[in-house]
Amino acid sequence: MTTAPREADAITAPVRDAMIRALELARRGPRHGVNPQVGCVLLSPEGDVLAEGWHEGAGTPHAEVAALRALVRPELARGATAVVSLEPCNHHGRTGPCSVALIEAGVSRVVYAVPDPGVRSGGGGERMREAGLDVQQGLLAHEAAETIRPWLTAMRLGRPFVTVKWASSLDGRAAAADGSSRWITGAQARADVHRRRADADAILVGTGTLLADDPELTARGDDGLLPHQPAPVVVGRRAVPATARVHAHPLPLRTFDGLDLHAMLRELFDEEVRSVLVEGGPTLASAFLAAGLADELLVYLAPTLIGGPMTAVGDLGVESIGEQRRLVFTDLRRLGDDVLLVARPDASAPTKE
Amino acid sequence: MTTAPREADAITAPVRDAMIRALELARRGPRHGVNPQVGCVLLSPEGDVLAEGWHEGAGTPHAEVAALRALVRPELARGATAVVSLEPCNHHGRTGPCSVALIEAGVSRVVYAVPDPGVRSGGGGERMREAGLDVQQGLLAHEAAETIRPWLTAMRLGRPFVTVKWASSLDGRAAAADGSSRWITGAQARADVHRRRADADAILVGTGTLLADDPELTARGDDGLLPHQPAPVVVGRRAVPATARVHAHPLPLRTFDGLDLHAMLRELFDEEVRSVLVEGGPTLASAFLAAGLADELLVYLAPTLIGGPMTAVGDLGVESIGEQRRLVFTDLRRLGDDVLLVARPDASAPTKE
Repeated sequence: MTTAPREADAITAPVRDAMIRALELARRGPRHGVNPQVGCVLLSPEGDVLAEGWHEGAGTPHAEVAALRALVRPELARGATAVVSLEPCNHHGRTGPCSVALIEAGVSRVVYAVPDPGVRSGGGGERMREAGLDVQQGLLAHEAAETIRPWLTAMRLGRPFVTVKWASSLDGRAAAADGSSRWITGAQARADVHRRRADADAILVGTGTLLADDPELTARGDDGLLPHQPAPVVVGRRAVPATARVHAHPLPLRTFDGLDLHAMLRELFDEEVRSVLVEGGPTLASAFLAAGLADELLVYLAPTLIGGPMTAVGDLGVESIGEQRRLVFTDLRRLGDDVLLVARPDASAPTKE
Repeated sequence: MTTAPREADAITAPVRDAMIRALELARRGPRHGVNPQVGCVLLSPEGDVLAEGWHEGAGTPHAEVAALRALVRPELARGATAVVSLEPCNHHGRTGPCSVALIEAGVSRVVYAVPDPGVRSGGGGERMREAGLDVQQGLLAHEAAETIRPWLTAMRLGRPFVTVKWASSLDGRAAAADGSSRWITGAQARADVHRRRADADAILVGTGTLLADDPELTARGDDGLLPHQPAPVVVGRRAVPATARVHAHPLPLRTFDGLDLHAMLRELFDEEVRSVLVEGGPTLASAFLAAGLADELLVYLAPTLIGGPMTAVGDLGVESIGEQRRLVFTDLRRLGDDVLLVARPDASAPTKE
């Protein structure tokens, strides 16, 4: 007679509720930065919440460690269940591996939503399983993956998550025939852009836009600079003037000469950039789109018509309609007089890269 | 001592409710056609509903007459209040003037929402006032005017209400570089276009679109032709081929040689066309937009990127951003995978015509 392998414990209501809570906690952390948003809830064997934690950004404890530290008494971790929105990490970064912390604390069960795709950070689940813990994956995986989609994409692809943003008239123009473009969208749309800049690790513009608009490339609110600033990156062959306003940015300016986007993104990834916001102009945006390197599109449409030659998107190499780049709209909202459309590549459509 | 003029009766709750109901009734009528959608409710002096009526289309009784005919006994009209969504007409069209019908029926009070701007049909309110009736205007005027905005616009301007429609990619292209465009939008967006065609008196395309797409210019549903068909109109210098599918349209084809849009619209108005749907191509749509002749825009945006030269809107003569044609978004909705944006000219913005 053989012994059946121990069946994993059922996902009970307290565990499910704890995962919903872990996702809420995760979202308290910053969206930018080298680490993802993660939340953790520790449950007693009876399903009572013992402690909570979330990651507050690079240099601070991971969610699991934060939760363990929040216990009234460390020994409460013995026999507890850790419910985490992401697979506990397996590598020594600025903090020790969370998988080891959970093992050493005496946690007996770990339920996490999505696996860590990181080459160095992944494998925490397996390590804990080998240590005898009951480990389960996949609870609310879709919700958790959506929450940290930029980070997961970056880790899977080894390059930053790329958001391409443009503002245009209803007929797709970014400027009038003479190049003038201030203002097409209104204050609420511009404020939305600034909030999203503050969520990004870097903000990219081409030298054409830099020379034409002299942007600050900062994330600003009503009270000045927002707490987090994206690193300013300028792409293209022309020199950045010494008087350019971007030199006043609190972070040093990064420049890339030329348009080898893949190499540039790899380099930024190696510098711990996990998300970039491509703000134009049309040449740079179109280069990212044509290369199939846009993971998300933010299109601010103003209620106006401009016509003429200054399209927000240029040539994408689409010769015939069968080659169009299909997307999926994921959000649609009014921002004052304007409309924001958020889209991402349609994973089910054939792509041409 | 002078006698103060009799003060108009107050708008009581039953009168207000009757106007809300009159607007509901109005919307039961057809949107197309030479007459507007109108509803009428007859109230007793005590505020009880005596009868209702609405206009079901050219050749059928106007709303007021329909309501009078719906009375259980004609003498109930004596001393009654007629609540109508539009000023009762003052001219002999296919039916007699409604103002006279109300006077002769013995109605003592008339409350209507919006005045009739028609040169021949207007003035009913004054006529009834002269006959000694208590006449009030303006109750729910905004709602009523929105309901029959196309007709009011047509009567005010002496030309059909013009809706310009296009379908494009998110970046404003109507076709790929080689001209192929089937399909950019999906089935739900196309069904929406067909429903709106059935609400229009005429549908306009340029000869370029006719030659490229060979459209039927009919309004179709799942079960074939919809009950009302827009008259097909082709605009441009090139000849319509004898084999063109538009010749199978249930209504005769109207052609206009050249692009004198003002003259064409005047002619169509004289032929009792009150609303036209301009479906393209880009040359014709842009001509209407550039001339400031678009009263409403329907923009079907597909979640796709095309890039390249085939913009849905061409040149509008906008040289500098100060000349952009400002609009107001009035509706925003998903249609399957696509998005429909409805806009109209911003009446508060400076226009260049």
